Amino acid sequence: MVGSVALDTVETPHGSVRDALGGSAVYFSVAARLLSPVSLVGVVGNDFPKEHLDMLTQLGIDTKGLQVKNGKTFRWWGRYSEDMNDRETVEVELNVFGDFQPEIPKEYTGAEFVFLANGSPVTQATVLDQIGAPKFTVADTMDLWIKTTREELLELMARLDALILNDSEVRLLTGKTNTIAAARDVLKMGPRMVIVKKGEHGAFLMSDDDLFSIPAFPCELVYDPTGAGDSFAGGMMGCLAKENSASRESLRRGLAYGTVMASFGVEQFGPARFLDLTVEDVDRRLSEFRGMLSF
Amino acid sequence: MVGSVALDTVETPHGSVRDALGGSAVYFSVAARLLSPVSLVGVVGNDFPKEHLDMLTQLGIDTKGLQVKNGKTFRWWGRYSEDMNDRETVEVELNVFGDFQPEIPKEYTGAEFVFLANGSPVTQATVLDQIGAPKFTVADTMDLWIKTTREELLELMARLDALILNDSEVRLLTGKTNTIAAARDVLKMGPRMVIVKKGEHGAFLMSDDDLFSIPAFPCELVYDPTGAGDSFAGGMMGCLAKENSASRESLRRGLAYGTVMASFGVEQFGPARFLDLTVEDVDRRLSEFRGMLSF
Repeated sequence: MVGSVALDTVETPHGSVRDALGGSAVYFSVAARLLSPVSLVGVVGNDFPKEHLDMLTQLGIDTKGLQVKNGKTFRWWGRYSEDMNDRETVEVELNVFGDFQPEIPKEYTGAEFVFLANGSPVTQATVLDQIGAPKFTVADTMDLWIKTTREELLELMARLDALILNDSEVRLLTGKTNTIAAARDVLKMGPRMVIVKKGEHGAFLMSDDDLFSIPAFPCELVYDPTGAGDSFAGGMMGCLAKENSASRESLRRGLAYGTVMASFGVEQFGPARFLDLTVEDVDRRLSEFRGMLSF
Repeated sequence: MVGSVALDTVETPHGSVRDALGGSAVYFSVAARLLSPVSLVGVVGNDFPKEHLDMLTQLGIDTKGLQVKNGKTFRWWGRYSEDMNDRETVEVELNVFGDFQPEIPKEYTGAEFVFLANGSPVTQATVLDQIGAPKFTVADTMDLWIKTTREELLELMARLDALILNDSEVRLLTGKTNTIAAARDVLKMGPRMVIVKKGEHGAFLMSDDDLFSIPAFPCELVYDPTGAGDSFAGGMMGCLAKENSASRESLRRGLAYGTVMASFGVEQFGPARFLDLTVEDVDRRLSEFRGMLSF
């Protein structure tokens, strides 16, 4: 997986943290590693606390691809509204992430399950250039890239197995408000499938031969939704890698694991909830979740 | 079931209809009758077209409880936004529905499954006063009653098995934005369970001993969402009445039938889609839906 490693300042009605470990690569990896070995490619500055690096290693995350550059680590500062439904980005300091050139260590060039976290589609494409023939490639994106680098994003999409994005992004990308109709349009743009994340409303996957819909795991207290989308992706890709399959059944289970991972993630600030989480905890909640959905 | 019978004028980006058959009692009944006999209690004016009455009868809906009063039938005029996500009520003429006094025919006073469509909680309570000891009583409500007759609504809620309402209404009723936490609060207000409808995002049921979540059936083309909540309730109550049960399992199946009925309803203007719908069509879609949810 390739993505950002950040120091996040997060303000919510429940409290706040300053310069805490964050970033898409972190949220993805702490979830994925519960199901499968995970190798992280990213960049930090030389101000990045050694304790964070040690923690990632202790969790079994391979950080061989994490470059340490002279300069400051990427910083993000977000503030949630009183009802947690809106988020304002107060400040972004790209720092060393600003001209991040992913370098895929030789050991990873045969990777079979590749996740490109949200980033410039040009940068995302350079990752694929360095990797052989993955079995399953997924990329995330965001409004910024849809608006400013649409052509590059469309070129990337043709090289993907799946595009993952949220409901407002799929509307922006296609100009359609009905998310099902919008997803149908995305399939015509290149990727074999599209996964639409709807936050508290769940997610769905659409491909030429499947339409799978899953509600969110009900969370009564959301402490910090930061990174939920990346934990979701981590759970999904972890499941696929573990099963060494991207079959219809594995993908559906992947979305279910992703849903459960995201529900854990929001229960505490930052990635804290994942630090002592076990695969037994995850499987217990997955089983509870399955029980909530059957009729 | 007790509710409104109306002549609706509906404007959507896909077209419009004028003085078409509508009202909660109609949407509920045309869905419920596919699964169980249904008896409708309501009121119309003497301008109500005989063809509508004949149509309801031909569908097997018992209209013994439909009063015909001197005056004009209830009229509602709604307009949907370009993206179908917002609805504006252009005009409401209560007419004979304004002082509707439901009179329950003697034959119905032993009814076991009772649905009180959206209406004043005082009027809803007079229905319960006329009925013996139903096995399962459900009431719908709306923002108007939550704001203007909160005390009366709370009194009614203590007499219900289930309150059914949408996500914005459950937030208004409880002051909580998290719908799961809000539903938890509703349980403390009296009803044994609460069913929260979330439109395109599905629905959930919460009781002391169950939490069941179901996504919506994916609809790519929504022609007219009017009445979807009532068709949902009709599918649910029809299922319970058919199974003569309000067990956990029947309730879950009920929500699934409700979801499928609502998905049919929005495919055409007004209740038109239900007119030639068969129980086989419904069961086929239910089975397709089940397939979309399994993992």
